[in-house]
Formats: sequence, structure tokens, C-alpha cells
Amino acid sequence: MEQGNVTIAPAQGKLGVLLPGMGAVSTTLIAGVELVKKGLGRPVGSLTQYGTIRLGKRTENNQPLIKDFVPLAGLDDLVFGGWDIFGDNGYEAALHAGVIEPERLKLVQEELEAITPLKAVFDQNYVRRLSGPHIKTGQNKYELAMQLMEDIEAFQDRTGVTRMVMPWCGSTEVFMEVDDVHKTLQAFEAGMKENHPAITPSMLYAYAAIMSNVPFANGAPNLTVDIPALQELASDRGVPICGKDFKTGQTLMKTIMAPGLKARMLGLSGWFSTNILGNRDGDVLHDPSSFRTKEQSKLSVLEYILQPELNEELYGDYEHQVHIHYYPPRGDNKEGWDNIDIFGWLDYPMQIKVNFLCRDSILAAPVALDLVLFMDLAHRSGMSGIQEWLSFYFKSPMCAPFLYPEHDLFIQLTKLKNTLRYLQGEEQITHLGLDYYQQP
Amino acid sequence: MEQGNVTIAPAQGKLGVLLPGMGAVSTTLIAGVELVKKGLGRPVGSLTQYGTIRLGKRTENNQPLIKDFVPLAGLDDLVFGGWDIFGDNGYEAALHAGVIEPERLKLVQEELEAITPLKAVFDQNYVRRLSGPHIKTGQNKYELAMQLMEDIEAFQDRTGVTRMVMPWCGSTEVFMEVDDVHKTLQAFEAGMKENHPAITPSMLYAYAAIMSNVPFANGAPNLTVDIPALQELASDRGVPICGKDFKTGQTLMKTIMAPGLKARMLGLSGWFSTNILGNRDGDVLHDPSSFRTKEQSKLSVLEYILQPELNEELYGDYEHQVHIHYYPPRGDNKEGWDNIDIFGWLDYPMQIKVNFLCRDSILAAPVALDLVLFMDLAHRSGMSGIQEWLSFYFKSPMCAPFLYPEHDLFIQLTKLKNTLRYLQGEEQITHLGLDYYQQP
Amino acid sequence: MEQGNVTIAPAQGKLGVLLPGMGAVSTTLIAGVELVKKGLGRPVGSLTQYGTIRLGKRTENNQPLIKDFVPLAGLDDLVFGGWDIFGDNGYEAALHAGVIEPERLKLVQEELEAITPLKAVFDQNYVRRLSGPHIKTGQNKYELAMQLMEDIEAFQDRTGVTRMVMPWCGSTEVFMEVDDVHKTLQAFEAGMKENHPAITPSMLYAYAAIMSNVPFANGAPNLTVDIPALQELASDRGVPICGKDFKTGQTLMKTIMAPGLKARMLGLSGWFSTNILGNRDGDVLHDPSSFRTKEQSKLSVLEYILQPELNEELYGDYEHQVHIHYYPPRGDNKEGWDNIDIFGWLDYPMQIKVNFLCRDSILAAPVALDLVLFMDLAHRSGMSGIQEWLSFYFKSPMCAPFLYPEHDLFIQLTKLKNTLRYLQGEEQITHLGLDYYQQP
Amino acid sequence: MEQGNVTIAPAQGKLGVLLPGMGAVSTTLIAGVELVKKGLGRPVGSLTQYGTIRLGKRTENNQPLIKDFVPLAGLDDLVFGGWDIFGDNGYEAALHAGVIEPERLKLVQEELEAITPLKAVFDQNYVRRLSGPHIKTGQNKYELAMQLMEDIEAFQDRTGVTRMVMPWCGSTEVFMEVDDVHKTLQAFEAGMKENHPAITPSMLYAYAAIMSNVPFANGAPNLTVDIPALQELASDRGVPICGKDFKTGQTLMKTIMAPGLKARMLGLSGWFSTNILGNRDGDVLHDPSSFRTKEQSKLSVLEYILQPELNEELYGDYEHQVHIHYYPPRGDNKEGWDNIDIFGWLDYPMQIKVNFLCRDSILAAPVALDLVLFMDLAHRSGMSGIQEWLSFYFKSPMCAPFLYPEHDLFIQLTKLKNTLRYLQGEEQITHLGLDYYQQP
Repeated sequence: MEQGNVTIAPAQGKLGVLLPGMGAVSTTLIAGVELVKKGLGRPVGSLTQYGTIRLGKRTENNQPLIKDFVPLAGLDDLVFGGWDIFGDNGYEAALHAGVIEPERLKLVQEELEAITPLKAVFDQNYVRRLSGPHIKTGQNKYELAMQLMEDIEAFQDRTGVTRMVMPWCGSTEVFMEVDDVHKTLQAFEAGMKENHPAITPSMLYAYAAIMSNVPFANGAPNLTVDIPALQELASDRGVPICGKDFKTGQTLMKTIMAPGLKARMLGLSGWFSTNILGNRDGDVLHDPSSFRTKEQSKLSVLEYILQPELNEELYGDYEHQVHIHYYPPRGDNKEGWDNIDIFGWLDYPMQIKVNFLCRDSILAAPVALDLVLFMDLAHRSGMSGIQEWLSFYFKSPMCAPFLYPEHDLFIQLTKLKNTLRYLQGEEQITHLGLDYYQQP
Repeated sequence: MEQGNVTIAPAQGKLGVLLPGMGAVSTTLIAGVELVKKGLGRPVGSLTQYGTIRLGKRTENNQPLIKDFVPLAGLDDLVFGGWDIFGDNGYEAALHAGVIEPERLKLVQEELEAITPLKAVFDQNYVRRLSGPHIKTGQNKYELAMQLMEDIEAFQDRTGVTRMVMPWCGSTEVFMEVDDVHKTLQAFEAGMKENHPAITPSMLYAYAAIMSNVPFANGAPNLTVDIPALQELASDRGVPICGKDFKTGQTLMKTIMAPGLKARMLGLSGWFSTNILGNRDGDVLHDPSSFRTKEQSKLSVLEYILQPELNEELYGDYEHQVHIHYYPPRGDNKEGWDNIDIFGWLDYPMQIKVNFLCRDSILAAPVALDLVLFMDLAHRSGMSGIQEWLSFYFKSPMCAPFLYPEHDLFIQLTKLKNTLRYLQGEEQITHLGLDYYQQP
Repeated sequence: MEQGNVTIAPAQGKLGVLLPGMGAVSTTLIAGVELVKKGLGRPVGSLTQYGTIRLGKRTENNQPLIKDFVPLAGLDDLVFGGWDIFGDNGYEAALHAGVIEPERLKLVQEELEAITPLKAVFDQNYVRRLSGPHIKTGQNKYELAMQLMEDIEAFQDRTGVTRMVMPWCGSTEVFMEVDDVHKTLQAFEAGMKENHPAITPSMLYAYAAIMSNVPFANGAPNLTVDIPALQELASDRGVPICGKDFKTGQTLMKTIMAPGLKARMLGLSGWFSTNILGNRDGDVLHDPSSFRTKEQSKLSVLEYILQPELNEELYGDYEHQVHIHYYPPRGDNKEGWDNIDIFGWLDYPMQIKVNFLCRDSILAAPVALDLVLFMDLAHRSGMSGIQEWLSFYFKSPMCAPFLYPEHDLFIQLTKLKNTLRYLQGEEQITHLGLDYYQQP
Repeated sequence: MEQGNVTIAPAQGKLGVLLPGMGAVSTTLIAGVELVKKGLGRPVGSLTQYGTIRLGKRTENNQPLIKDFVPLAGLDDLVFGGWDIFGDNGYEAALHAGVIEPERLKLVQEELEAITPLKAVFDQNYVRRLSGPHIKTGQNKYELAMQLMEDIEAFQDRTGVTRMVMPWCGSTEVFMEVDDVHKTLQAFEAGMKENHPAITPSMLYAYAAIMSNVPFANGAPNLTVDIPALQELASDRGVPICGKDFKTGQTLMKTIMAPGLKARMLGLSGWFSTNILGNRDGDVLHDPSSFRTKEQSKLSVLEYILQPELNEELYGDYEHQVHIHYYPPRGDNKEGWDNIDIFGWLDYPMQIKVNFLCRDSILAAPVALDLVLFMDLAHRSGMSGIQEWLSFYFKSPMCAPFLYPEHDLFIQLTKLKNTLRYLQGEEQITHLGLDYYQQP
């Protein structure tokens, strides 16, 4: 099928969605999609389902839905599966997550009960505050990865899906930096066999996915596919990867506000962010080593948006703090409070306070859905390796090693939409628009 | 001077800044510029002074200052003058405005005292809560306009400036809609002679400016140059005009937040905005007829950003309220409180509360400065009539009648920067960036 | 029964609760009590149900529940009835009010359906934004009052209750001041017969209640029993009355915060209060004449707490504003935002912002319950006329004409508890406590 | 002088104020008092200077100023001295503290420069993030205490003051619990000679004060006089002591709000408090061992106010967190954000958010002033040992060991005022007030 610049294979057959971690985000995604299929809910927050894209000039008034513009899989074609450290089926897990009310879950009880997680690859050394009984055993990490690949193959055989995508929805692992064992595929595969401590469970999932020709999206701040070995493997095998850390809640708000302040060249003296949340994620982040992973992901955002190296006077010396507190009364209803100290004309100080009463999984589920559909589109379009055009969805967007990441949500959206226009051979939008007026 | 696509006359000689209304914004602008000239303050919040512009690819690392990229007038070349309904000189007026502390104003006392406002064209029928003694008299509105033109000419003779710009910094007038008398220049000029009630003082200033070859920027929500007669006059005489209503405070925040929510396709059920402020502006807006003018300007913002016609399900039915309260304890320190009711995945409700402790004139002064410098650039570049590329600075951006305005701050910024790139013959930035990666 | 200083008749038999207005507050009260009776809910927010009272010295550790200390009616003894302008039964009305979820209401559907409102006395001249079909007709206001008295008698006959209480839970009427017709019983009764416009429907209910020996509690800011004619009638007939305007939400918070600031002698320069709510109450208050009634009730609070006449320097010149906005997205979930501008040592300014995400009827229902039980206690204790000791529950507490009202929530609570101690012959608590230490 | 129940010696001569720690609070106190003396500032926030006290019945309208009712020292009689780890004089220290603007400090420069701190007793083991050069040396802690006593004596000789008070305004020490060495005077004095590690610098100051007949008020959360040895010493020697931890900022707000929620029997599920501040105090509290001391003081507040043992259902299971973050952009302008999760009728959840933009030292200075004046009054009235009636000023009020402390700000105020009434032989106020009405 020739469309625009690129040949995109059609979205024929079913699309498997393989979820490592069947917690709040995964079950909210699955239950939501099943409710939507039945007309009992709306997939609000999803760009693939609601977004439009302007084509041509403003006067042409041509703004189709994105899903009518590029050939995406339909929600009816999604088939879910996954792994978890608890054996609860999807219904039990969703009840336990406590995001969607029990009465509403009952409407898709059958569909959810049909999803039984496979045994997870898990090691408490990497997620200290969790433990569970539903865990794979094996001689070494390589063998565990092989088991995951067998799971994937069996899933495909069982369900008859034609393609699959794996969005990581598991927990935040302890902080980890690139090690020699991550640098080449050879070293990595040898490391798995030797149970090298720098190889984490999430890496085994990613390795298994790529080896199985399954695009991988990294929803947590873990290192996972941010290592040369797996990035090269993905390029070589023609598999798209992207990440990392779903951008929701406070960081989403930060990547909305910061570009606004920067646009107007208002100076920043401090940004204090605190969060309260009471779900499993909050509990995991109570562990300092997991928190450090998250914190790195959250802190870098401002640096890239504000470009202190270009605006030393305005952004060269600000205090940025991010705190996360496990506060059980809130359950999944995360709340962020930001205090932003800015300065303007003649250095006069001003303050902005943002209080976001959000819902963690409600914001994350449509992100996961969009990534599933766009990663499948990328795969069918012949794109492979890092998908920078999906930066829009991530707190720490992956990009080529010689580039800096774009954190500005609005640049990210422009990038995403212009990529879609490119795929379909449409003209890039620059918002210049001088041709509407007398030319100078 | 051939530069890029367009011939831009050099910024030689002094640039006159003619200010109708010498209140808080004007005096904060003037005092600020004088302090900056002496190295006693920084023009924070000004894109022309601090902004950078990326040229070429990310890897080229070429991001000059905007003021090094396009030939703008320097701050040392600005010469201020203006009109006011009080005869206080600039120093007295600045003290009265209470924005900058007295100790700091003393540092530029001499410069400020040198600025004595001319008698204003004023009529209390259009601004009911103000009155002052320093007012022109004349047979009819046309004669008043002639007096303004004489003032402008005399200013140029006295100061020797080579060019001038007039940014309206006066009060909000009563609500007014386009009338027959506004439709042609002929009708308008006849109307002035007949003292037609639909011709407001601000229109006389704009008429005088355009007739005197002085670009006009409308900083208030008044109708002023939003009428065919003056728009055609500006086009015919090659004079740039732009407007309207400086985008500061709560509306600035709204045009930052709303595009962020829209980007993520989060639904909106309500947006409640309240403001407290205690300066002259707050007092004027206490009058319902002036408030209505302001309210129109503030309410339309969301409609254009959210495009309910394209996203009926998400944005087709929200409650939007804007309230402004005159609350003297605050003085110029305006404070906004926004409560935003959004909904996400499966329609779950969430809330965002934004509390902005801002300073009205501190945010407006750099906007006025940028408009002075960019309008002068446009003039020297041969651009005339409506300058849509300056939408970035306005609550209700002017655009060609067959277009819808762009309210999204980030689209506005892209438009502004791509216009500058166009003027200098640089490539448009699309943020596509697929060429950094393996091509699909 | 001799108890302490006062003879209190025992709480034998059933207690009728007569509700003028079966809207959100009434149905939340009834449904709540029925749920509590079944063990399906808790009457949180009720001092009569949860409050304790310290007796004797701290070292005695004697703090019984209030309901164990004074002889109150039990919840099982309450029998509900009422009037409304709609004929919906209690179940339908509760569903319509939208405070308690439908699933929960189903658990007491039978009990609620059994309550059918009688036709109301209503006149749209006094509540402009409401109208309904279920309305009494009569020759004149006196005749309507007679019909109410007949309703009361019939209710008692039908249900066999031994005593009754009438807490007004109807709407806010238009603003009204004391008129000659209100000054004596004779004038008042003549006025009813002549349909005097200064006699409002709520006064007819109050008159009917007092004539029927039923204590009356005024939950709205209406004038109602704040008139000499009805106050004397209540005294003469030995019937307790109290009011006015249930203290919930923002005003509750204000009477908590203001005494705290006053305690520390922190000065006040401004208090800006805004409210958003979306229920019937919000709609009614959208009418300026009803809002004025409410505003008077809300504004006076600070004057009495801060005593500007005693503290001219700190409280002699502050700006106090109260705004209420009908904002449908919120339904019954009222939200208040307060900005408080204070000043301290050497006049340095500080700010407090309070954002209260409350629920109107959820806060009002236990207030209504407590008043029912305490008014019945007062009646059985032989107390009559104005019950100042119940000021704790009201925005505009009634008191003897030669006194100033106490608005400080903590003085009000002390008064309430010391009254209970007095009724039972217990020692007054002064918190002096010097006897625990060496005496000076 | 016979007055009321108690003989109070007159406030003749000068009163010395001995300040251990000449940081932000001390210098704000001193500069403020000097400004007030000159009529250049107002001592807002001070109950002794602005508070009134009602005497007799409401109808008597007798509400004198507290300072006219009890014989307090006047501000003109205060003479300041102190110790610090830096040798800066009062003017330099005040400039460094950055609370009061330099221009204003200049107005009392001479008075402040005249105050040179004595060398401090200091040991970094107890305050880890501070160090300074202006420190006493000695053989052991006993010898250091002797040096302090000599300092006190020399101060009195030099200034001719007739009485002195010592309010501790130094830093928060590491967390410490009562040890055997604290239990008797004998053990304590032996411990000083042996340099026992459980004896902290603040204890040496307190010991020196009591031995010198100087009342001691503990403004920090340190253990200091909360030990039997010093409490007995104070009683034996007839010296008043009180503490601990000046109640300002967020905890002040908490002791205002919590009694309000408790009054209405609203349940509590969580209270999350976070603070940002950027002064020396914030820096010291960045050390976990100092923070623990502060946290203990802050956390206990709710327990005592809410009495979970009496109200298990409403207050038996809430999450209470207090966080303090050193955030330099704020300087002395502390900011608190509280999120309070409450529940009402039928357990419906509601939220209160309080954002307090306060100023640490501006709130603390009048507290220190009041304590100086009231402790001197207590001393002259023959009161000794723990002064529970001053609980009003403290986060962790001291009380007799067999009592529980009162944390409710309003009970504390009642206690304070009834104590003053007692001292002057006035009737206790109970707010019963039934005598205004017909008696039941």
C-alpha cells in the first residue's frame, strides 16, 4: 500500500498487547478498552481515538481524525495478555487496583476474567518493596529470557494475532547506569548467562520482545532499552522501541507550564514539586533506590526545556526539587502541588501554584493505548530502533545519542503530527502563514 | 540591505515610543528601560532581549539571540512620549502607580521627570470610572484627531526620532461592536466630524497614528483597529497594526494550560477563573460596560484553542466563567485563581487548580517593549496591515477576516519564530527530524 | 426527673421531624438517618452522636458521650414528614438531589418512598428562580398558616409522635428587613389576613410551628423568626426557636480561621471569598435578591469575631468580599476559595489561601440532626424563646436584642457545652487549671 | 501590692532580655522593639500589646487592653543582650538574617550596633549543620554553665536591670530523650562535670538562667527544661519556666484548624503537611537528627487535639505526615501547604487545602516578646516552675507530668485569659450566659 512517502503495511488481523505487570495501569487499560468496545465508556485522553490533524492551509478546513488519516489497528482488534507476580486474573487484579469502581468492572467481568497472567520474571533485588508468589525460575537470566520468548510464541499461537506490541507497565526498578555489560549484544548475552547484576528483569522482557519481533515501549523510568546492546538489536532486527516513563500527572503539567514560561522569557528561581499518592506505585517509590530512578527522570525535564546554557541569566540558577510521598488515604488518586518561583521585568518575583488532583492510571491508560497503536503503525511502516517522534508520551524521551531530547510538550506534538503528515505524504505545517497576507 | 527573502531597512536613528495612557504599564515600561540602560535592572520577560532562535538542525547547535538575528532597534535608541488625563510627569505617575518601589524610581528620577504627558483625548462616556483634568477640547472628533497628529509631528520635530511606534496602554473602553460608521474610511471620517458615538477615543489615536505612518499596537480589548476602515487605511498606507489586549496574567496561563490539555485530549467540563486586583485597571473593570469588553476578550480564548466543532465529545459542553474583582489590598499585584474541571479515560473527573500571584504591569511592560521593537521591524521590512505573527502577545489576536485566530501560545510562538526565519531567509523549523534516524 | 439544676422531661415516644423543603439537605438527612438505623452508614459530623464532654478535672478522665450525658431522643425514634413544591416522594427527591449515589439510596428506598411531601406554601415573589406545581392555595396568608397547622396536627395524629421539631430546610428568600407588621403579634396576625407583602412563606411555617408547640430552627438566612412578633410568641408559649442559616462550608471555615488570627492579634487587610456550586441552592442564589440575603448573613461574621471597635489598628480597615457562583459542573460539591491578606510584626504582609472542596448537604445534614435533638431537649427542659446556646450551628446566631452575637466557633462550643453541664448540674469548665500547680 | 487573689510586685526598673542565639528571630525582635519605641513600627501579632480582655458580662462592655489590666513591663524598659556563635553585632546580624529590609534597619542602626553578642556555648555534635568561631571554651560543661552565670551577672551589673528573662531563640538540637542523668539535680550537676553527652548546650543555658533567678522560655523543640532535674530546680528556686517550640506558621494553622474540625466532629483520614523555607532554620532542619526533634514536636499536636482514644471512629486511623524542605529561593518567607482529608455524614470524603505564605521570624518575634513580658509577670506574681497557662505560644506545651497538654489554641487562649482574670481577682468567663434569658 503506497501512501505518501512510505509504504505502510495494512493493519490486518488481530494485534496482541503483551503487558509485563498487570497492576493498576494495565487493568485500567484492559477494562477501559473492553468497556469502550461495548459502548459503555469513552477512551478520553487518547490522541489516537480523539485527536485530529490539520492538513493544508487553515482556509481549507481539512482536519480529519488521526485514526482516519493513518491506518491504525482498531480497538476491536486488540487482544490482551501479560505477566504478573500475582496469579490473580484480570478481574481480580482490577478490583484490587481500585481505580475503576466494582459496579463498572462487573460489566466486563467475563472479558477480564479470561485474562490470566503468566508467571513473571521478578527479582526483589530490583524492586525492594514488592514480592509475589507467581514467579518464573530458571538457571540464569538467559534461560528466563528464553521462557519469555516461549510465552510470546505461545500467546501468538493461542490467539492467532498477526502482530504484537509490548508496553512495559511494571514497577520502577532500582537506579542503574550503563555498564560494560550493556554495551554490546555479545556482552549482554554473555551477561545474562552469568546472571550479571546489572541486567534487570525489565531488560529480559525487552530482549525477549525484540528477539520476537515485538515493538517495546518503556513505560517506567528504568534503564531497560536505554542501552547500546538493545538499541542495536532493535535496529538490526527492524523493531521499533521507545521510552521512557509515561508522562502523566505532575511531570505532564511541568512540560506544559515550563515551555509557557520559557516562551515569555520569564526567569525561574525555584520549582518545588511534591506529590502524594497511595497506590502500589507510591509504595514502591517509598524505597529510596526506586525513587532515585524516578527522580532522575523527573528532574531532567526542566533542564532540557529551559536550556540554561542559552539563557544563563534567566535559567542558570534555579532550585528544583521533586518529592513523592506515599500517602495511603489517596489510593490511586495522585495529587501534585507545585510551587513555582518566577521573576519578570526588573527581576520582580511572582509565584505560580498548581494543584493537580489527578488519577494516575486514568492518565496512563490512554498513553499506553496510543503507544500500542502508534508502535504497531511504526512497525508496519518499516521504522525501527528509537522512535523519537513518540517523545510526546514520555518523561525522559529516548533520542539518538548525538541529539538532545525534546521535552517541550508542544514541540513533541508538532514532531508527532508532522511525522504522521510525512508518513502520508502531506505537507509539513510551519504556522508561518504569511501567504494569507500581503507579502512584505 | 538584502537579507533573506525580504529587504529590511536598517534601524538607524532614534525610535519614538508614543504612549496613549501613562499609567502603570507605561511608567513601568519607561522606568524599566531607563534602569536597564544604566545597568540597574534587567528586561526579564522580553523575547526581543533574551529570546534565542534555533537555526538549522539540532546538531548544528546554532541558536543566536533574536536581537542578534534580526535588526532590531536598541534600547538606547528609544525615546518616550505620551498622553494622559493627568498632567503628572513620568516620575510622579510612576510613584502613583506603585509598581516599582520609590527608592528604585529615584535612580531614574531625572529621566522620568523629563517626560510630561500631552493632554489626552478622553470622554467619560467610554470609561465611566475615570476622569481627569488634562484633556483636549475640540469642535468634534475629527478635530481632536488632527490635534493628535500635530502632537505626533511636534514630537518628531522636537526629538529628532526617525521612526515611531504607538502601543496603546490606556484603559478599557465600554463594549462596542462594528457599526456602519466603521466600515469605510469615508464613513469613518464623516463620523468623526459628526461626533458619531460609535467612534471612541482609542480609534482617534489609531487613526492619527496610521495617518502619521506610525505602527499601532492595541494593548487593550477595545474595538479600536478591529474595524474595516482602519484596517484598510493601514494596508493602503503601508502601516503595520496589531492587537488586541496584552496577554498577561490569567489569560497567559490559560493559553499555556489549555493547549496542554488539548494536546492530550483530556476533556473539559468547566473552567472557573477569578481574579483579584487593586490597581486603576481593576477599578475601571468594576464598571460592567468596561468589564464586558474585557470578558469577551477573555472568554473567546478557550473556544479557539479547544476547537469544540472538531471535538464535540470532549469540548462541546463546558462551563467557562471569568470574574474580575476590584480588591484594593492587592494594588498592582494581581492574583488569579483557576479551577479547571477535566475528565479523562472513561470520563473520570480530575481537577487542576492554578493560583497565580502575578504583577500586572511587570508582565505587561516587556510585552509592550517587544511589540514596539517588532512593529518597528515589520515597518522597516515593508509589512503592513494586520501583523498576525504577533498573535503571541495578545488575548484576542487579530487576523485576516477569512481566518480563525490562533490562540495556542505554542503555535503562536512557532509562527513568530518562523516569520523571523522567513524574513532572514532561514529554513522553516518543522520538528520532523526523521533524517536523524534510519529512514522508513 | 430532677437532674442537676433543671427538670428535664424524659424523651419518651417518637419525635416528629417536620421539614419545610424536601431538597438536598432534607433528603440527605432522612436517607442518612435511615441508613444509620440499619447500620449501613455513620452519622459523622454530628456532635450529638459523636461528641464527648469533659466533666470535672482533667485528671478525673471523665469524658462521656454527650448523648449519654443528656437525655436525647434516639435516632430510632425519629419520624420524618414535610412539605415541598414538588410532589416527588423522598426517594425520587433524593435521587434528584444527587448527593447520595443511587446504589446507596436503594438500600433505604422503601423508607424514603414512604415519605410523601405535603403541598407547600410557596410564592415566587420570594424565591424568584424556583417554581413548582405542588402548592397550597388559600384566601390569604393567615388561611395558609391555618392549613399548615392542620397539616401538623394531622401528622401527629397519623404517626403518634409525642413531640415535634421543625428545622427549616427550604430556600433562601429575597432580602427583607423588619417592618412594622413584624413588631407585634397583633400586627402580624392582621398582616397575614391582609396578605401583607412583608410576611414571607417561611414566617407562616414558623408561626404555624410555634402555635402548634413545635420548636423551630431556621436553617436559611431568611428573616423568618428574627422578628419581635414571633419571638414574643415563642417566649409566651414556651417554645424554643433558634437560627439562622446553617453554618457549613466556607463560613464554617471562616469562623474557624478568624478566631485563630484574632487570638494571635494578626492584622487583617483583606478577605476575599469565592464559592462555586452547582445545586438548586446555587441556582437560587444566582438571583441577586436572594443572594443579598445570603451575603448579609455571610459578611457580618468577621465584624463580630474581630471586634474592630476594640482593635481599630488591626481590624479597622479591611476589605471583605463574598462571591457565590452557580457553576453546574460541581453539582452539590461546593468549593470555596479564600484568600486572606494578613499582616504581622512591623506590618509585614502574609497570605493564607484556603481551598475547601466540600459537600454542601453532607455538612448540613448533621447540623440539622443536632438541632432537631437539641431543640427537643431544650423544649423538654422548659427552655423557650431564643436558644443562643445553639449559636454554634448558625452563620447569623440569634441572641437577645441587647446582646451582640458570638460568632467565634470556639466560644460557641464552650457556650454549648457549658449549657449542657449547667442542665445536668455539672461544674462549668474555665480551663483555668492553676490548682494543678503550686499556687502563686 | 494586693491585686485580686495574688500579690504582684510592680514592674519597676528595667527588664533584661537575654537571648541565646542572635539569628533571625532575635534580631527581628530587637529591631522591631526599637522601631516601635521610635514610633516607626507596630508590634502587630503581640497579645500583650494589642489584646483586650473581656471582664464581667457582655452587657457591661468592659474590655480593657491586657497591658492596662495586668502590670506588664513597658517596651521602653526592655534591655537586650545575648550570645551567638558569630561575633556580628545586632545590626550586622539583622542584615544577614534578611527579614527586615536594609533601609528600615538603618533607622535603628545605632541601637542594634550597641548589642554585641557574648561568646556562645556551642557544640556541633548537637547542631550538625552549623559552626561558628565565637565560642566559649572550658574544662567541662559545668564550667561552661558557670561562665554563662557570670555573663548574666555581668550583664545585670553593666545595665542595671532589676529583672531578667531568657527566651531561647537558638537552633534545633539533635533528638534527645530523658536519660538518667536528667532525673535529679545531683545527677545533672555531676553529669555536667563529666561532660555527659546527654547534656546539651541549651540545658546549660537553662541551668544558668534558673540558678541566676531568670525565667526561661524554651522557643525550640529541644529537650532542655523538659527534664525533672531542671523542673525541680525551677520550682525550688521560685523561677518560672515554659516551653516548648514557638508555635508559628504551619503548626499555628494546624492548632487553629484541627479544633474546628473536631468541634464539628468531622472525621480525619489524612493530614499531609509540607513546608518550604530557606533560612538558617531550614538549613539546620535539613539534618535528619535535628529534623526528628522538630517532627516529634509537630506530629504530637493532632493527637492531643483530636483525642483518638475518645473518638476512635473518627480519629483512630489517620495518616499524618510533616515534611520540611530547605528551599533557598524563599529565604525567611516560609510557606506551608497542607492537604487535609476529612470525611463527613455517611463517610463522604472532603478536602481542605491550606497554603500559608508566612514569614517565620515575623510570626515568632511577637511570641518571644509576649513570653518575655508574661514570664516577668509570672515571676513578679510568685508563680514558679512550669507555666502551663502559656501553652498558647508553644507547639509542645509543657504541663505537669500527670496531665495531658492542651493543644487547642482556643482552650489555650481561654486558659491564658482566665489566668489573668484570676491574678486580678476577676470572675472567670464560662460563656454560659443563660442569665440573659428566661431561666429554664
